Amino acid sequence: MTAPLPLTGVRVVECASYVAGPSGGMGLARLGADVIRVDPIGGAPDVTRWPLAPSGTSLYWTGLNKGKRSVELNLTTDEGKELLAALIAAPGPESGLLLHNRAGRDWLSDDVLRAHRPDLIHLAVQGRRDGSPALDYTVNATTGIPYLTGSGTTAVNHTLPAWDLITGSHAATALLAALWRRQRTGEGAHLRIALEDVAITSVADLGWLAEAQLGAPRQRDGNYVFGTYGDVLTTRDNRHVMVMAMTPRQWQALQTATGTQPVFDALTTTLRIDLSTEDGRYANRRLISSVLQRWFTDHDLPKATAALDNAGALHAPYNTIGELAATLEAEHTTGSTDSIVTNTDQPGIGPVLTARSPIRWDDTAARPAPTAPHLGADTATVLSGVLGLSDTHIAALIAKGIAGGTPP
Amino acid sequence: MTAPLPLTGVRVVECASYVAGPSGGMGLARLGADVIRVDPIGGAPDVTRWPLAPSGTSLYWTGLNKGKRSVELNLTTDEGKELLAALIAAPGPESGLLLHNRAGRDWLSDDVLRAHRPDLIHLAVQGRRDGSPALDYTVNATTGIPYLTGSGTTAVNHTLPAWDLITGSHAATALLAALWRRQRTGEGAHLRIALEDVAITSVADLGWLAEAQLGAPRQRDGNYVFGTYGDVLTTRDNRHVMVMAMTPRQWQALQTATGTQPVFDALTTTLRIDLSTEDGRYANRRLISSVLQRWFTDHDLPKATAALDNAGALHAPYNTIGELAATLEAEHTTGSTDSIVTNTDQPGIGPVLTARSPIRWDDTAARPAPTAPHLGADTATVLSGVLGLSDTHIAALIAKGIAGGTPP
Repeated sequence: MTAPLPLTGVRVVECASYVAGPSGGMGLARLGADVIRVDPIGGAPDVTRWPLAPSGTSLYWTGLNKGKRSVELNLTTDEGKELLAALIAAPGPESGLLLHNRAGRDWLSDDVLRAHRPDLIHLAVQGRRDGSPALDYTVNATTGIPYLTGSGTTAVNHTLPAWDLITGSHAATALLAALWRRQRTGEGAHLRIALEDVAITSVADLGWLAEAQLGAPRQRDGNYVFGTYGDVLTTRDNRHVMVMAMTPRQWQALQTATGTQPVFDALTTTLRIDLSTEDGRYANRRLISSVLQRWFTDHDLPKATAALDNAGALHAPYNTIGELAATLEAEHTTGSTDSIVTNTDQPGIGPVLTARSPIRWDDTAARPAPTAPHLGADTATVLSGVLGLSDTHIAALIAKGIAGGTPP
Repeated sequence: MTAPLPLTGVRVVECASYVAGPSGGMGLARLGADVIRVDPIGGAPDVTRWPLAPSGTSLYWTGLNKGKRSVELNLTTDEGKELLAALIAAPGPESGLLLHNRAGRDWLSDDVLRAHRPDLIHLAVQGRRDGSPALDYTVNATTGIPYLTGSGTTAVNHTLPAWDLITGSHAATALLAALWRRQRTGEGAHLRIALEDVAITSVADLGWLAEAQLGAPRQRDGNYVFGTYGDVLTTRDNRHVMVMAMTPRQWQALQTATGTQPVFDALTTTLRIDLSTEDGRYANRRLISSVLQRWFTDHDLPKATAALDNAGALHAPYNTIGELAATLEAEHTTGSTDSIVTNTDQPGIGPVLTARSPIRWDDTAARPAPTAPHLGADTATVLSGVLGLSDTHIAALIAKGIAGGTPP
């Protein structure tokens, strides 16, 4: 079954860089949208962002711009700005969507753009809600989470730019919600989403903000999972395993796998503690870990894993990222069609592990992961296909430095 | 301007618990959708999840279920399952959307549900792509990120359930994409999204997987930001500040704020290092931090902040979560209408900091954050309004224990 992807026909113009905006646009491209990323000639600052391939091509840029089309325009010129405005305002019920993170640029002001197309859907990704700059790592500092991570007394930064990725995904949701409304009512939309707001919202939604307000702020607790049992244990061969027991069934399975039920029964009876509830297991997490660790100390990872699997316990060994890559490459080599990554020939890099869409459509055949375009690869095609410019006109724009890329 | 929210009229049935599914449903509720959360009588296991309010009510459950309607059904009975199937299949072009995380339940199998409504949009949130269980923390273990976080040689778990939140947001995007397609083609959709796939996709999209595959896996690097300059510095009054310089302008501002430009100029000239590029600043991150730290050691946080702000440097002080809550509460008390949180009277808890939607619609008035329902608060209203059951019928269902909540 190979129904077209669900957003086939929808067109989004993206003027964004780094993670949040581009990941949002890529989410829509993965669902079939025609996402046209417009960059200054030579690229935005993220075009050389680390990590780099041995060839020097940015693995970050190619990773975050898969399946898009790339257009280069000289946005310091009036003619370049007008071309961009025309792309954004191009007619059609499935066009007229803009995603950007260029707060404060006059040529992306809502008034200017909406004059061209009153039903424009215009979403600005911002750092702070007042439009001032902030990045994932500075926003994260303000959330309190770095003081709840790891051990010790110093802030511990997260490595995953989680706020960027959540913001990007929210941006994709917001654009589709606005498109849905426009199709029903004809109204356009001017939307803003700030990393800062996303971070505060998340911390509030999890109940942590209310907890702090009501007088009992979360404390740093190492690798334990708050309010239940979860910890990192170490096997005889010095591998780490994440082990959890949230539900009664998971707790039973963990005791069965490790043969520790008599111990925990005896502890329950003798010390009159209750390990049958999440609260009780959390209160006694150090005790539980001490007992379980003794079992892990006697077992190499393969034996521990087998025992935990057999009993249906919830666990996972820790990988280095190199181990994860090796596992996924092996999965690909053995021809698994279900893998979330494929080894894709990316222009400028060569074969490289590349992710498909995490959203799986049962009526849509699994496709190879798309590659990222060369910068400016689609300038001519887009100016011709969307704006109807002639080859001569496009060649002149490129010759004058108003547009970049290969002339038609 | 108070246009209705964009998803007004859209109805989603949610049978999910913990973070991923419920946060996705709440994202849609924030955009105006009627999200009906259906729980077993007495609630799913997350109804008592920590943190708790002093009253014993779960701050986690109320945080993640704001603006939804709550229905309790006895899903161990055929009659309860049939009522759920009828809710899911209720007619209408904006109904027939299901979000759940109950993989493997026969009464939520796609075949059974689709028999009632062929154009159903059915999205299952899974732990692993094969349907086996996994939670945010076990998935995170497999990504390699815990070995890239903080310092030392042990895995460091993240505290934010980032995979849950990203998965939830992707689920919302996916449902809207499927709704868009159905409105155009009449086709329903069967969708699956696994935490495991979301995590691998994210690590791949950032280029980290390719980097490891191509031979140079990321190494743990404390609080530095990879490939640019970013670090945590400590003020005279022992406060931590996140400081970054990605762009040339940010690097200039940081030198201006701290008066260190002569030092960095001299270092550049004498040691022939290049601090003008992100690569160069990353290579010399320890040196940069040593110089800047000397300045921070002489300045209390307020003075440091003022100097950094004046120069336009990119920075943020670290908060504890208690400090963040206090700041937001003060913002609320002073009547800021722009705040992302409001102090909302939540049934079962009282006034509590509650987040609005991070997606800001310029044509939609800021609304107070909605509260979460009492468990089962909407059973009667939903069975009557959606299924057209009579009050007598509903009262009988509640009396028989097929449905929960207050009789009509």
